[in-house]
Amino acid sequence: MRLLRVGPAGAERPALLEDDGTLRDLSGLVPDVDGALLGDRAALTHVRAAVGARILPVLDPRGLRIGPPVARIGKIVGIGANYRDAVAEAGLAAPAEPVVFLKAPDTVVGPEDTVLVPRDSEKTDWEVELAVVIGRTARYLRTDEEALASVAGYAVANDVTEREFQNERGGQWDKGKNCETFTPLGPWLVTADEIPDPQALGMRLWVNGELMQESGTAEQIFPVAYLVRYVSRFMTLYPGDVVSTGTPAGTAFGRPEPKPYLRAGDVMELEIDGLGRQRQQVKNA
Amino acid sequence: MRLLRVGPAGAERPALLEDDGTLRDLSGLVPDVDGALLGDRAALTHVRAAVGARILPVLDPRGLRIGPPVARIGKIVGIGANYRDAVAEAGLAAPAEPVVFLKAPDTVVGPEDTVLVPRDSEKTDWEVELAVVIGRTARYLRTDEEALASVAGYAVANDVTEREFQNERGGQWDKGKNCETFTPLGPWLVTADEIPDPQALGMRLWVNGELMQESGTAEQIFPVAYLVRYVSRFMTLYPGDVVSTGTPAGTAFGRPEPKPYLRAGDVMELEIDGLGRQRQQVKNA
Repeated sequence: MRLLRVGPAGAERPALLEDDGTLRDLSGLVPDVDGALLGDRAALTHVRAAVGARILPVLDPRGLRIGPPVARIGKIVGIGANYRDAVAEAGLAAPAEPVVFLKAPDTVVGPEDTVLVPRDSEKTDWEVELAVVIGRTARYLRTDEEALASVAGYAVANDVTEREFQNERGGQWDKGKNCETFTPLGPWLVTADEIPDPQALGMRLWVNGELMQESGTAEQIFPVAYLVRYVSRFMTLYPGDVVSTGTPAGTAFGRPEPKPYLRAGDVMELEIDGLGRQRQQVKNA
Repeated sequence: MRLLRVGPAGAERPALLEDDGTLRDLSGLVPDVDGALLGDRAALTHVRAAVGARILPVLDPRGLRIGPPVARIGKIVGIGANYRDAVAEAGLAAPAEPVVFLKAPDTVVGPEDTVLVPRDSEKTDWEVELAVVIGRTARYLRTDEEALASVAGYAVANDVTEREFQNERGGQWDKGKNCETFTPLGPWLVTADEIPDPQALGMRLWVNGELMQESGTAEQIFPVAYLVRYVSRFMTLYPGDVVSTGTPAGTAFGRPEPKPYLRAGDVMELEIDGLGRQRQQVKNA
């Protein structure tokens, strides 16, 4: 199922996008279906039954804002240097183990919300990424099967990054990863049962209509199951946490000088097979 | 005022510790006083009036667990290498600007809760720190006065860190900062009006009764006002966010070999002048 949250920022309600494009309102369902967006089996069964019974009101999508698909994100675990094509582009060796950083949940916006270039920023950059939404607590997992069983579903993320803040300010990456609006997420959470192989998803990103990133999760050095298992050795993953699994080649940072960093007025569009499409206009903070 | 939250994990209620040691229950106050713990002026005035009117029930502190003093922490911004004595101990130059990393709110426990040594950890370490709790949104602040006006209050934090995860796993520090139970916080939030100079606070940490860290915030390379102002250029700070301002010399990592990293059975005690005292027993995860 494609689950989403629609409405004004901070007042979104849960919804379901059917295969024929009909948008259904889940907010009236009793019991509460927030759990469905985290992969809770009982909640999902409840939603499926309501869909089958055709009792869900239809929503008019015109003018309706789409919010991030997860209501309360606990933490966002970012993965760096995880695509073979990106590492090759940078002239680096593949890392021996995953590079892990954090993004704050307050950086998350909807898939069509504005992205802000921070003040004093010259190097704001895009990163199309497969986001993994956790549905079941993951702690010291031992097998890939356990890891995949803890995944509620998948979504598109744009891991927007300020490269000077990330790399040239004498510190950790987090400084360039946590500016406001830096994590567009959505449009949908696609439940894990509909993504039989998360390593077979093509992904693309355009800036002002020009194709900048074109790759796929087959290029991941550490696949989704490995990442979730690996991260669970260092930190406990809870329902509503997100693991953003790295970006392929083709960022502004990965290109020759003069690198085409984002400027106010630019438009980013990005998509991952089966997970939908984002579109953000860039403005100054 | 010394504000705190008491009760079982996940079901704490707000309380107030008076100067004579009397513990008062704030949970019955209407309107809700959660805002008082974030420095909201109206809520603080309301609490003060209730204290003056002697209408607050007394709580028996015996056997009562103390939780972290902030109910819903949005993000925790950690600062590294911020004490002159710690940098000197490591033989490093002072950083040109603050080193910033993140800790997830799910790592926060109460000041007397158990701290867990992660599985496969050999280098779990302590860090006594002054935690700054944000009470007012801080975004592109320009002056130290604005920065201090955005501070709700101060608390003791133990920024527990796994050094091998932090430094030897080919990545960012976050991997060693976000293990479960790694951020004991409290016992109290002391409102900013009672801390006229946050750069004049002595701090100490003992392991099994042996004094390991003894320093003070006068040793900070970047003081509290500078840190809040600096961080606000890179990420927006919201009410309920925490900035943990770095640790002085005397960690296990800073000591000669064999470094005395934490083992199950160890007891950490830590305190900062005016902000109270923590005590954690160490167990294996």
